[in-house]
Amino acid sequence: MDLSHASLNSITVRSASLAELVALATDRGFGGVSLWRDTYATIGADAAARATRDAGLRVTSVCRGGMFTHGTAAERRIAWEDNLRAVDETRALGADCLVLVCGGAVDGDLARARGQISDGIAALLPYAEGAGVKLAIEPMHPMMIADRSAITSLAEANDLLDELPSPSLGIALDAYHVFWDAALEREVHRAAGRLLSIQVCDWVLPIQGQLSSRGMPGEGTIDLSAFVALGRAAGFEGLVEVEVLSDRWWREDPTITADAAVAGLTAI
Amino acid sequence: MDLSHASLNSITVRSASLAELVALATDRGFGGVSLWRDTYATIGADAAARATRDAGLRVTSVCRGGMFTHGTAAERRIAWEDNLRAVDETRALGADCLVLVCGGAVDGDLARARGQISDGIAALLPYAEGAGVKLAIEPMHPMMIADRSAITSLAEANDLLDELPSPSLGIALDAYHVFWDAALEREVHRAAGRLLSIQVCDWVLPIQGQLSSRGMPGEGTIDLSAFVALGRAAGFEGLVEVEVLSDRWWREDPTITADAAVAGLTAI
Repeated sequence: MDLSHASLNSITVRSASLAELVALATDRGFGGVSLWRDTYATIGADAAARATRDAGLRVTSVCRGGMFTHGTAAERRIAWEDNLRAVDETRALGADCLVLVCGGAVDGDLARARGQISDGIAALLPYAEGAGVKLAIEPMHPMMIADRSAITSLAEANDLLDELPSPSLGIALDAYHVFWDAALEREVHRAAGRLLSIQVCDWVLPIQGQLSSRGMPGEGTIDLSAFVALGRAAGFEGLVEVEVLSDRWWREDPTITADAAVAGLTAI
Repeated sequence: MDLSHASLNSITVRSASLAELVALATDRGFGGVSLWRDTYATIGADAAARATRDAGLRVTSVCRGGMFTHGTAAERRIAWEDNLRAVDETRALGADCLVLVCGGAVDGDLARARGQISDGIAALLPYAEGAGVKLAIEPMHPMMIADRSAITSLAEANDLLDELPSPSLGIALDAYHVFWDAALEREVHRAAGRLLSIQVCDWVLPIQGQLSSRGMPGEGTIDLSAFVALGRAAGFEGLVEVEVLSDRWWREDPTITADAAVAGLTAI
């Protein structure tokens, strides 16, 4: 993969500041970066937009909005206001999309969680449309159903899009979350024209913590070349993000981690 | 749940010998036990059959056959011969079924792994039919796709049964592996008449090792009452197994672990 078609996700080099992230990305020829919101929390989205724009970097996504499944009315209100802010920041950054991590089935009631997610997206969508911001539902690995997202397959994300048709609503597709799915090829075809983000990392064992046991592209068992080709065939024309949540790689110096990401991407 | 409708899986009380397992089960009023093959490796299946029969315990399943995805011809031959032995042992034990853990996509080639699994079951099936032994395909959690099973959903298991129709082939349905699936209810209905085993444990976080981070019924987020009712509505009339692979519970004395299993089952 040509790095001008790739984006460095901030969480891959978690300890880097925004300025450091921008330098890591430009030094290596990345076409863009993806920003977790903590990277610009202190300087604000407008300053972050200037920093990335001045460096010629596209902002491929902002992570994250969502978390629609909180239990109490007070919690839901806090999440709602946070989602409005996330949309505003995504607009300020001119990012391709705001990734929605939809929220887990905290109490085990999957049907209720999925209903809350559908309702939550429907409520947020007009605000995003008004801001010209695209929301990207991210189906997440089933091992994250209790703590991160009750949307555990691309089929479910496609179902939500059928239910809530809007040019401002699409899908963020991360290889790690969906590669295991026997229906993946069929559902990626169904997602044609809906893919707002494609992310890569690799599946490595053992799982030590369901969130941050991931590997660099090439370290594990996912056929990432086939995965990216599948997304391209479904019309995705954006940059491919390398997003690696890894306790192991987070212990390294960010320059080493960024170099490993480059090596992994280049082999795709 | 009335314990006469429940079965104590040997792995739940891993350090117990077969004699201890039988005593743990009969003392608490379990209707049966499920045996991992290591429990009777030293005394043999015939002696294990006498021990369980004399105690009035039904053997609900034997764990495991399968592992069809080994790479080399030599590995496949070893697995094949082991599968024949597993069928013989299941027959000797008079167990309801032999659970098939089908094998992971070791090299990341999911399509190839799934083909090997289909071929492997097709090859083993006549031998099982001749022995009067039922084989139970166990769909496993997607986090086990690389090391345990490339069959990651009940839909895939149902597809395999459509492909290989036989009264000697069915499904082992473990709540832990399938509870997250948005298509679960539909697929359990589709599995009506095919369910040879129902197993329960609970989903607890964090995942520290993808194999043995499970919880006792009631400790986690799975609605096990609804799960068992779904299986019963699909015609399952056997005993419900409590199968808890848990580093945490394995550290306890088996009597304490068995008591916890009883408490969990009673609340379902």
